[in-house]
Amino acid sequence: MSTLFLRTLREDPADAEVASHKLLVRAGYIRRAAPGIYTWLPLGLKVLAKVEAIVREEMDAAGGQEVHFPALLPREPYEATQRWTEYGPNLFRLQDRKGGDYLLAPTHEEMFTLLVKDLYSSYKDLPLTIYQIQTKYRDEARPRAGLLRGREFIMKDSYSFDVTDEGLDASYAAQRATYIRIFDRLGLEYVIVQAQSGAMGGSRSEEFLSPTEVGEDTFVRSPGGYAANVEAVTTPVPASQAWDDAPAAHVEDTPDTPTIETLVAAANADHPRDDRAWTAADTLKNVVVAATNPAGERGLLVVGVPGDRDVDMTRLEAALAPATVEAANEDDLKTHPELVKGYIGPGVLGPQARPEGVAFLSEEDATIPYMLDPRIVPGTRWITGANEHGRHVFDLVMGRDFVGDGTIEAADVRDGDEAPDGSGPLELARGVEIGHIFQLGRKYAEALDLRVLDVNGKQQVVTMGSYGIGVTRAVALLAENNHDELGLTWPVQVAPYHVHVVATGKDESVFEAAAALATELEAAGVEVCYDDRPKVSPGVKFKDAELIGAPFILVVGRGLAEGTVELKVRAEGTSEALPVDDAAAVVVARVRAALAG
Amino acid sequence: MSTLFLRTLREDPADAEVASHKLLVRAGYIRRAAPGIYTWLPLGLKVLAKVEAIVREEMDAAGGQEVHFPALLPREPYEATQRWTEYGPNLFRLQDRKGGDYLLAPTHEEMFTLLVKDLYSSYKDLPLTIYQIQTKYRDEARPRAGLLRGREFIMKDSYSFDVTDEGLDASYAAQRATYIRIFDRLGLEYVIVQAQSGAMGGSRSEEFLSPTEVGEDTFVRSPGGYAANVEAVTTPVPASQAWDDAPAAHVEDTPDTPTIETLVAAANADHPRDDRAWTAADTLKNVVVAATNPAGERGLLVVGVPGDRDVDMTRLEAALAPATVEAANEDDLKTHPELVKGYIGPGVLGPQARPEGVAFLSEEDATIPYMLDPRIVPGTRWITGANEHGRHVFDLVMGRDFVGDGTIEAADVRDGDEAPDGSGPLELARGVEIGHIFQLGRKYAEALDLRVLDVNGKQQVVTMGSYGIGVTRAVALLAENNHDELGLTWPVQVAPYHVHVVATGKDESVFEAAAALATELEAAGVEVCYDDRPKVSPGVKFKDAELIGAPFILVVGRGLAEGTVELKVRAEGTSEALPVDDAAAVVVARVRAALAG
Repeated sequence: MSTLFLRTLREDPADAEVASHKLLVRAGYIRRAAPGIYTWLPLGLKVLAKVEAIVREEMDAAGGQEVHFPALLPREPYEATQRWTEYGPNLFRLQDRKGGDYLLAPTHEEMFTLLVKDLYSSYKDLPLTIYQIQTKYRDEARPRAGLLRGREFIMKDSYSFDVTDEGLDASYAAQRATYIRIFDRLGLEYVIVQAQSGAMGGSRSEEFLSPTEVGEDTFVRSPGGYAANVEAVTTPVPASQAWDDAPAAHVEDTPDTPTIETLVAAANADHPRDDRAWTAADTLKNVVVAATNPAGERGLLVVGVPGDRDVDMTRLEAALAPATVEAANEDDLKTHPELVKGYIGPGVLGPQARPEGVAFLSEEDATIPYMLDPRIVPGTRWITGANEHGRHVFDLVMGRDFVGDGTIEAADVRDGDEAPDGSGPLELARGVEIGHIFQLGRKYAEALDLRVLDVNGKQQVVTMGSYGIGVTRAVALLAENNHDELGLTWPVQVAPYHVHVVATGKDESVFEAAAALATELEAAGVEVCYDDRPKVSPGVKFKDAELIGAPFILVVGRGLAEGTVELKVRAEGTSEALPVDDAAAVVVARVRAALAG
Repeated sequence: MSTLFLRTLREDPADAEVASHKLLVRAGYIRRAAPGIYTWLPLGLKVLAKVEAIVREEMDAAGGQEVHFPALLPREPYEATQRWTEYGPNLFRLQDRKGGDYLLAPTHEEMFTLLVKDLYSSYKDLPLTIYQIQTKYRDEARPRAGLLRGREFIMKDSYSFDVTDEGLDASYAAQRATYIRIFDRLGLEYVIVQAQSGAMGGSRSEEFLSPTEVGEDTFVRSPGGYAANVEAVTTPVPASQAWDDAPAAHVEDTPDTPTIETLVAAANADHPRDDRAWTAADTLKNVVVAATNPAGERGLLVVGVPGDRDVDMTRLEAALAPATVEAANEDDLKTHPELVKGYIGPGVLGPQARPEGVAFLSEEDATIPYMLDPRIVPGTRWITGANEHGRHVFDLVMGRDFVGDGTIEAADVRDGDEAPDGSGPLELARGVEIGHIFQLGRKYAEALDLRVLDVNGKQQVVTMGSYGIGVTRAVALLAENNHDELGLTWPVQVAPYHVHVVATGKDESVFEAAAALATELEAAGVEVCYDDRPKVSPGVKFKDAELIGAPFILVVGRGLAEGTVELKVRAEGTSEALPVDDAAAVVVARVRAALAG
């Protein structure tokens, strides 16, 4: 410790919000170089190396072969797959001295595809899984939480290449099993959730989410084992209903009812229903949103959801990926006089007051797409806007009186919603994505023309899987999941040191005994941080040891006169006296037992 | 081999000029992703990892502590040291989504300095040596020779921090000794040469150059042990001479003598010397060059050298760093009518034909700096241009008739030149820089205000050293130095595999025996590549094994029937039969002996 390049801090860094960020900085593991860009100090690098080693061992054990791609790449391959554009402002772009366009790669599907195309040409070469552990770049709009969402970060990404769909299934299953082993070895809790593949393309997609309050991702799980991120949750579609005995739609005055709440109150007061009171679920809320595609083209659409739900912009954006979405603004509405704010409806009833030459949402020549929540099935009856200020239409029947241009998963998902597979009510939770596995299928192979000769001598487009682990993020999550009010509490598998030996007091024999113990432990393969600082108080030394968070703390101090040293188990807060002569052997045994799991 | 991600090539890649580049691509170690940017395939990554491990072990053994800086960095620290500008087009610059200026770091002096400033504040914290093994970026004008001069490359860079000059000397000496151990372990031949520190600033500076014909750097060495790169060679300064008995300078007609050769011939024909013939060494050649500083400002200067020497633009550029230089063009000369092409001289003689209002080089109000080779000392007599077409001046005496604005090391260095330390004649050779150690001194610490309290409680600016090893370049050089016409011949320390086991023929027992041997070798810690490909001819297998270049090749084939296998030592081309039962033990012993050095 007297020479270790380290300076612990007693105060949290000003920009840190989550515990892992605060503690990794305070305990001298990382330092910020720029927003979302971190320097690794010696302690942090040790943890990072251990996480990488576990990932590498398991990838190799699963037959993965390691390669290493550049981070600085030319534009062309990413142009071929549209991602040069689709990544939008998330991509760091630059030019070289000759004006050539380059990027800092956020992911390497294109390069892996081209490399396999370069080297391989036959089905006999496949299946193949190759991977790298490499530094990636993403120009996040809001880098946050230290290593949890950075702009320069390390990922393990692997890619599988198969001729057949069955082969892809097998490669995918092998990577999935490997991920389970990796996260188990790292001691990271995880939930495997169904995911949308978003801008990555492809079909089957699962995320490994680590549940944590500080997570940015929301996911759901059911008692029956269903789990998905909110973007991937599909709404159980109710059966269509007959509308034979439904009353005809009728427009009513509903003054001052621009919100669902005011509308329901007015409906119950002025137009009561016979059998029960109107609720928000009886109303159809139509939300105008603006979507912008990667080329920068902006367009409006209207999303219809039951009035007891909100539009979840995250789900909507996932449904419209790679477009980005935002709420429509006043100017948007002005260009569409058929949209009467607070009273928007599909608008198919007779001669309502409408601007000349414009069509309502549900009409054939409407200019704005009208997308409906899957719950809005034929036969359902709604109270909704009449496209006139202060008026709503009642008993408007889907299928009879209006239709949409399609369905969209955009309504928010709530605690207690039924799981799509009928496995019970959903529970919402927060987590951080630590792994993501995709069946990319043939999208990249087609875009970049990766084919091999099959067993019949025919050219076949290869099918691919893509598998990622956030390595730096895993370090952050390990810190997030393993800390208390005193500092970090690393699992032994990834701790920078197994044992922190603390010599206290000024007695030379204490320092000699501590040094001897440290040497003995190291000779047995135990990794030791020895606090040999001569003029630092025991209190400061203990605080530092607790902050740094090695799993075992061995204190050599006053007890030495009686022939004992003190062994503390950091995570459990326990402490016991050991005879100094046995101490090394006991600690070695404890460390080995802990490492063996 | 049947599953290894590898495709060997029989043809050299079109863009490859040097053997290491050709062979690393052909043998499947690397692939080009863009000019000067390479992807590492499994074989290449194994070699790279071994080189990195040796560097890391020795750095750690010398007390270095490993950290890791980002590659993507904000402009500000590099602005503070002027390097944002000084690096000119060699720097990859980019902007983030908010318009902030960033760069891809070519080197990290600034960041290391700031980190130590962030963590440390007392002399008690020093000395400190920290290092990283990290990916760097330089937008080379002419990336070439594969990994030898890339635009994305891996370096080990370390930095030492001391309070005193003596401390820096000790840190520098320790790193120098570590470099010697590293290159010795890697089996890389090297010469330690004195170097100019160039744009890095600082004082003492040495390069580790690996001698090779394909090197871009020229260096010199003397029988007495002097060694320097050409930029750092200083010219022994002759003694000044008395000019009492020197004749007065006189201008002569010398028609059609724009070159030194024509001038010497004309001088001997028309103005012969009494004692001996005129030679080129009697003439003073004045070369007009244009220098551009990092801010883009371009200016002319004239360099005077003895006529038997040329101006070496590399040496001139080093002398003027960080400016870049080029020969002046016609337009440059037009703006300076006092410069008469082919007849330029210092121009101090009486009423020569000269444009009004301009001064000659040697006059006080001259607008162009006039820098002289150190050999041009007071009292030396020269034939040089008279600044009139077709006329030269004879017996122009330095100190009496003209002076320069200073001296400059710009004349070329030649085989046979005397070493500056008098240790004998210089020999020129070519090499590649594999390491560079600098005493930076206080330049960066001053620019970035890195101070610590000294033993007396006073603020002291820290003094720094900077030490680099080109890790990817070392891989290239190892390939360059270890190959023959058949392929690579790796030293065992860095070979991707220790032993290449080749099973030949179709006999199942051969494959079984080969597999058993491979397993036995691996169990003993030997790294094996087993060529188990069933339908590949022995010829192709041998060719691949030779191309890939593992140090030992163990052939299991026809001899098996008689109970023997064949062990080839790749680099020596030797071959011997071994009893199959002893083979594993013999090979293990050989590998261990080779590893032990």
